[in-house]
Amino acid sequence: MPTLETDTTSKTRGDTASSMRALFKHHAGEGLEYDPARALPAGSTGKPGVCGPNDVLIRVHKAGVCGTDRHIWEWDKWAAGRIPVGIVTGHEFIGVIEKMGSAVEHLEIGQRVSGEGHISSMTDYNALTGNAHIARDMQIIGVDREGCFADYLMMPQSNVWPVHDDISDDHAAIFDPLGNAVHTVMSAGVSAKSVLITGAGIIGLMAVTVAKAAGATRVYVTDMDPRRLAHAKQLGADDAFDVREGDGWIKEIDGVTPGDGVDVLLEMSGAPKGIDAGFRALRSGGTAALLGIPSEPPAFDLTNHIVFKGATVIGVNGRRMWQTWFQAEQFLLSGRIDLDPIITHVLPLSDYAKAFSLMQSGEGIKVVLDINGPTR
Amino acid sequence: MPTLETDTTSKTRGDTASSMRALFKHHAGEGLEYDPARALPAGSTGKPGVCGPNDVLIRVHKAGVCGTDRHIWEWDKWAAGRIPVGIVTGHEFIGVIEKMGSAVEHLEIGQRVSGEGHISSMTDYNALTGNAHIARDMQIIGVDREGCFADYLMMPQSNVWPVHDDISDDHAAIFDPLGNAVHTVMSAGVSAKSVLITGAGIIGLMAVTVAKAAGATRVYVTDMDPRRLAHAKQLGADDAFDVREGDGWIKEIDGVTPGDGVDVLLEMSGAPKGIDAGFRALRSGGTAALLGIPSEPPAFDLTNHIVFKGATVIGVNGRRMWQTWFQAEQFLLSGRIDLDPIITHVLPLSDYAKAFSLMQSGEGIKVVLDINGPTR
Amino acid sequence: MPTLETDTTSKTRGDTASSMRALFKHHAGEGLEYDPARALPAGSTGKPGVCGPNDVLIRVHKAGVCGTDRHIWEWDKWAAGRIPVGIVTGHEFIGVIEKMGSAVEHLEIGQRVSGEGHISSMTDYNALTGNAHIARDMQIIGVDREGCFADYLMMPQSNVWPVHDDISDDHAAIFDPLGNAVHTVMSAGVSAKSVLITGAGIIGLMAVTVAKAAGATRVYVTDMDPRRLAHAKQLGADDAFDVREGDGWIKEIDGVTPGDGVDVLLEMSGAPKGIDAGFRALRSGGTAALLGIPSEPPAFDLTNHIVFKGATVIGVNGRRMWQTWFQAEQFLLSGRIDLDPIITHVLPLSDYAKAFSLMQSGEGIKVVLDINGPTR
Amino acid sequence: MPTLETDTTSKTRGDTASSMRALFKHHAGEGLEYDPARALPAGSTGKPGVCGPNDVLIRVHKAGVCGTDRHIWEWDKWAAGRIPVGIVTGHEFIGVIEKMGSAVEHLEIGQRVSGEGHISSMTDYNALTGNAHIARDMQIIGVDREGCFADYLMMPQSNVWPVHDDISDDHAAIFDPLGNAVHTVMSAGVSAKSVLITGAGIIGLMAVTVAKAAGATRVYVTDMDPRRLAHAKQLGADDAFDVREGDGWIKEIDGVTPGDGVDVLLEMSGAPKGIDAGFRALRSGGTAALLGIPSEPPAFDLTNHIVFKGATVIGVNGRRMWQTWFQAEQFLLSGRIDLDPIITHVLPLSDYAKAFSLMQSGEGIKVVLDINGPTR
Repeated sequence: MPTLETDTTSKTRGDTASSMRALFKHHAGEGLEYDPARALPAGSTGKPGVCGPNDVLIRVHKAGVCGTDRHIWEWDKWAAGRIPVGIVTGHEFIGVIEKMGSAVEHLEIGQRVSGEGHISSMTDYNALTGNAHIARDMQIIGVDREGCFADYLMMPQSNVWPVHDDISDDHAAIFDPLGNAVHTVMSAGVSAKSVLITGAGIIGLMAVTVAKAAGATRVYVTDMDPRRLAHAKQLGADDAFDVREGDGWIKEIDGVTPGDGVDVLLEMSGAPKGIDAGFRALRSGGTAALLGIPSEPPAFDLTNHIVFKGATVIGVNGRRMWQTWFQAEQFLLSGRIDLDPIITHVLPLSDYAKAFSLMQSGEGIKVVLDINGPTR
Repeated sequence: MPTLETDTTSKTRGDTASSMRALFKHHAGEGLEYDPARALPAGSTGKPGVCGPNDVLIRVHKAGVCGTDRHIWEWDKWAAGRIPVGIVTGHEFIGVIEKMGSAVEHLEIGQRVSGEGHISSMTDYNALTGNAHIARDMQIIGVDREGCFADYLMMPQSNVWPVHDDISDDHAAIFDPLGNAVHTVMSAGVSAKSVLITGAGIIGLMAVTVAKAAGATRVYVTDMDPRRLAHAKQLGADDAFDVREGDGWIKEIDGVTPGDGVDVLLEMSGAPKGIDAGFRALRSGGTAALLGIPSEPPAFDLTNHIVFKGATVIGVNGRRMWQTWFQAEQFLLSGRIDLDPIITHVLPLSDYAKAFSLMQSGEGIKVVLDINGPTR
Repeated sequence: MPTLETDTTSKTRGDTASSMRALFKHHAGEGLEYDPARALPAGSTGKPGVCGPNDVLIRVHKAGVCGTDRHIWEWDKWAAGRIPVGIVTGHEFIGVIEKMGSAVEHLEIGQRVSGEGHISSMTDYNALTGNAHIARDMQIIGVDREGCFADYLMMPQSNVWPVHDDISDDHAAIFDPLGNAVHTVMSAGVSAKSVLITGAGIIGLMAVTVAKAAGATRVYVTDMDPRRLAHAKQLGADDAFDVREGDGWIKEIDGVTPGDGVDVLLEMSGAPKGIDAGFRALRSGGTAALLGIPSEPPAFDLTNHIVFKGATVIGVNGRRMWQTWFQAEQFLLSGRIDLDPIITHVLPLSDYAKAFSLMQSGEGIKVVLDINGPTR
Repeated sequence: MPTLETDTTSKTRGDTASSMRALFKHHAGEGLEYDPARALPAGSTGKPGVCGPNDVLIRVHKAGVCGTDRHIWEWDKWAAGRIPVGIVTGHEFIGVIEKMGSAVEHLEIGQRVSGEGHISSMTDYNALTGNAHIARDMQIIGVDREGCFADYLMMPQSNVWPVHDDISDDHAAIFDPLGNAVHTVMSAGVSAKSVLITGAGIIGLMAVTVAKAAGATRVYVTDMDPRRLAHAKQLGADDAFDVREGDGWIKEIDGVTPGDGVDVLLEMSGAPKGIDAGFRALRSGGTAALLGIPSEPPAFDLTNHIVFKGATVIGVNGRRMWQTWFQAEQFLLSGRIDLDPIITHVLPLSDYAKAFSLMQSGEGIKVVLDINGPTR
């Protein structure tokens, strides 16, 4: 009688290594460690490198380093509370299909793919109604289970995203954070609207170019780092304000927007002051999409910021499968967004320490790790 | 050359008194005072009882006493900061048209009317795009300008609502708070959804019957007053929980809702604990409509309540002109809601002190003042 | 090396018969034929009764007879152009799980289930963005592939719907057409709105009770069969009009609706005259959901019915996976809808000829075939 | 006792002429006639040039010639059935305020203004719920009542739109048709979507630049006039197809869009063949906005174009007060759209015959009549 442990791999490239290079969380503290000979990830079979019927083994070529990875590196309170010590980290990638299970259809060995890192059993209410990204049992690769800072990654076929021929490896490698930006922008709806982005981190900067592409009439950005503000302008922001210089920018925006405030706030700072200022700059009847995460529940003026304003506030978590991915793809293919100015560094996997140091210093925006070279 | 001061009254019933009875805020402290011979309200002409071209003078027959009126009576912090001493209070009413200006069309002398108490110049962005209820210069009758606890009320023709023949005086007199309930329920969208109402005050109770009428599959209510909870059940709530008995109700709701929490939260308590519990009982991807007003900005767990949940939060202020009014009218005409159980007392104007005392004790839910008897 | 042909069945009740009773389309003409010993359906393995990794074999207990089945019986133009001769028909059912493949999780042998009959490979744009019901390669059981008028049915795990304990076999057996009604009503949005249903067939009648449950203030129905009109009233319609008596009903509705016409049209007749009259009865700015299917493209007054009216028109096809199913379940569990008056007959499978004759005469509304008795 | 006939003009520039130049429909046949000394338009007073309390008299500086004006000139079936012989035509304009009634507030003598030409009593359901553009008693200037091809135009203050300082006279003069384009694009929602515009008339061409500004990823255009197609490409269309060359373009679009068809159809041809082809090019689950008006009800394949496709179809009529106007203003101010390539000719009023001839030949796209020179 067949059982789940059986290797149901139906197709393979035939040259899969028996061990792999990987970057993993070696202890409950700062840093990540490089393992030159780690066991391959297991799928539903529980056996390293062996696919269950619906599993896909992907050879990772490039992987983006995310702000979340930095939290894991630095082992902050959030990381210490969530990350299982021992896992391979990383969740943004492009690779090619190495092996796949017997029930995998419509994918091919050697195909260029990225993947949605939010994995759920697809059985709860949200998963069954188009919101798998907020499913109760959702696990994120590189956060809750084995990730992509390695030669190989295993995921179910339902999480694999075929990459369009006309999209470059580097761009495909960062579809995950691009998806956060696209999901935030599209959730709020910015077409024919003025937009304020509070916080010019990686996703905030991506949101600048995405918001312009999505039809925003004006895009304003706030941050405390002049380099980030300059970057925002280069990406198309109509104006960028240094919040260390006070609140004068709120009045300035009020003066040029018909609604005496922006139509849309995209909150990407997670800073209580940034959140508060953002809501003050929002017009009555406006929409705020919240992506940034305060470390502690802040005092928040619900009365003036939401109730009296008649505002709509949308929590944004992850990205929609697969609507957000199609939107990101079409924005890229149409040439309406360009990610090149955001990818400041591409480094070999072995330079991982430098990658994190570039992010910590603020010199790097998006750093991509080159693990197995170009996919073609 | 004609000027704004000219009396442009084109039509009148002909018997308007030269002074009126009124309840007004006589000093910056507790209570209201009764004036048996107050000057009539002025319209755009600035002259008592004289209509400008677009003004309508209404003889008030019945007026509802609102929780806001109680705040004004008690002269709490909010009232002290907002109410101009000297004004006539009251903002819920039914009456008949006594006089109207030369440019008023489509209304008739003697017509039964209520009116939207949010008055704006209709010149800012929100007023010009269908959101007059959150216009910047919006003034509320009985709060910012002369109200309806009096024989006469003056308002622009654009704020007058003709009352349908089949709607009773008592129901028409409280269309204003009914509108708050309808606006909240319809903003959230409850059709085919489970609903939690935190706070069973007047509007919370109205929201029970409105939510059932609007298609909610289940309606749950929380409060700290057993009389209110019993009332909620009588009005159709599927269950009603006393929050003083702990948080067990949240688990109970989780167990019977497919999304492990309610689809919709209608927050009507304004209490930080109520808000927090309400959001905990909301499912991921759910919608919260906030009507209640905390007295101070509470610590609010934006991260878990909005961002991670992917929740949508809607601030509700006033009611939509005139969509909400039509919805309220149609709910009443269809017999799908009944306000009778909510109107616990109807008292003559002279018994105003008793009216406020009934509200303060919790014995009264909605108290209606009878000022000039039935309209027909 | 394992291949797709392997039996990956991991769990079974152990008593599966080697052949089954079935009703199938035996020739390209009228009628269906009963086969007492047909081969069991094959899953992805291609072998009768053998599950591929993701397949579920269901023992059918009850099955609803649909208007579509009647078209197939009568072999009309549509049926002749679509139905592959030889297939087992039927697409509405309840049963219990008999066997399942090795990769099936979260389901159990013996579990009461129904299922979504629209099956797609889940690879095209619509399938990947929450609209699998209109996927390009979508196949319907009993229409394009083996159906449920038989002892056994095979479908992928992703199409199986666990039936709630508190829902009866008969109600669960007709979740499919109930889903059409719910999808139509919820697509249009009827909360606080007046609704006209043109065509009181099975789905039209279901839509009456669903529209009331979903918050419609008034529900009007038109048809040409007085029995159907009486049924509509019994199910909660505020009024029901016989269109053979002229168009007077349109004026009548205009006179009692604030918008001079209904807010929502649910078109379920498919008759060009019904469609035209329905749109004339719709108010400017209203919404029409179209489920009925004209046999030929009718002359349609796009200019007056859609453009000048500023109407919104929504095509409705199938039902949403799984949002519609949850909505239907919650309506039933809340007691807001009742399907009992719609199920006029329950007959054993062997009485299939009588079932079709009852439908053709108009005497039966929903006829359910009892194939294997109660599920518990 | 004051009456409606009183001159309530409170403010005036003081130099209003006693007669005016005007272009009017002189007889029930082809052409328009020029009157050098026509009586000024009357407001609610009924007296030429005399403002009622809410009236505004505008000195017209520039006026756009619309396709509708051409229908009126050519006296086609539609025009013969609707236009009252004798009226001044024209409905697109910019001017300055000459006089205003006693109750007009928030406007100033000499102010640069345009205006919404759809005038209603604001008393029916749609007018009272934010849809005045489809109000039952709506009258259009230059179509149902005195228009703007004249020195002066009278309209209620609630229809007057103050023109932003940074918007040129020529652009402001054609806000009306720009509003049609913006309303169509924004009704459909094009952000992150592929768009097909069938029909490259004035509004179709405007829709090209508006759709790009509003966030469309790709814009395709069809027409039968190569000049129009070239114009469409110049305005930013990704491709433009001559429908006389067959349907190959539909396959071409299918091949490059993820949904096998465009996400959005903007139907602006009104031609039955154009409508049919447009719907064939629309993906399942897509949205169509219909602005074009077929002269006769066409045979329309509701079944395949709407029902089976699960399409959403939106009728577009006029433009939203004032949301569309703000959107058009913000698109212009942001520099995201440019109308200059669309305005092919500016001619003095006396050259009106040439203006119509340019439109008839197809040589002119948007022709603007210069009536009183620049506003400043």
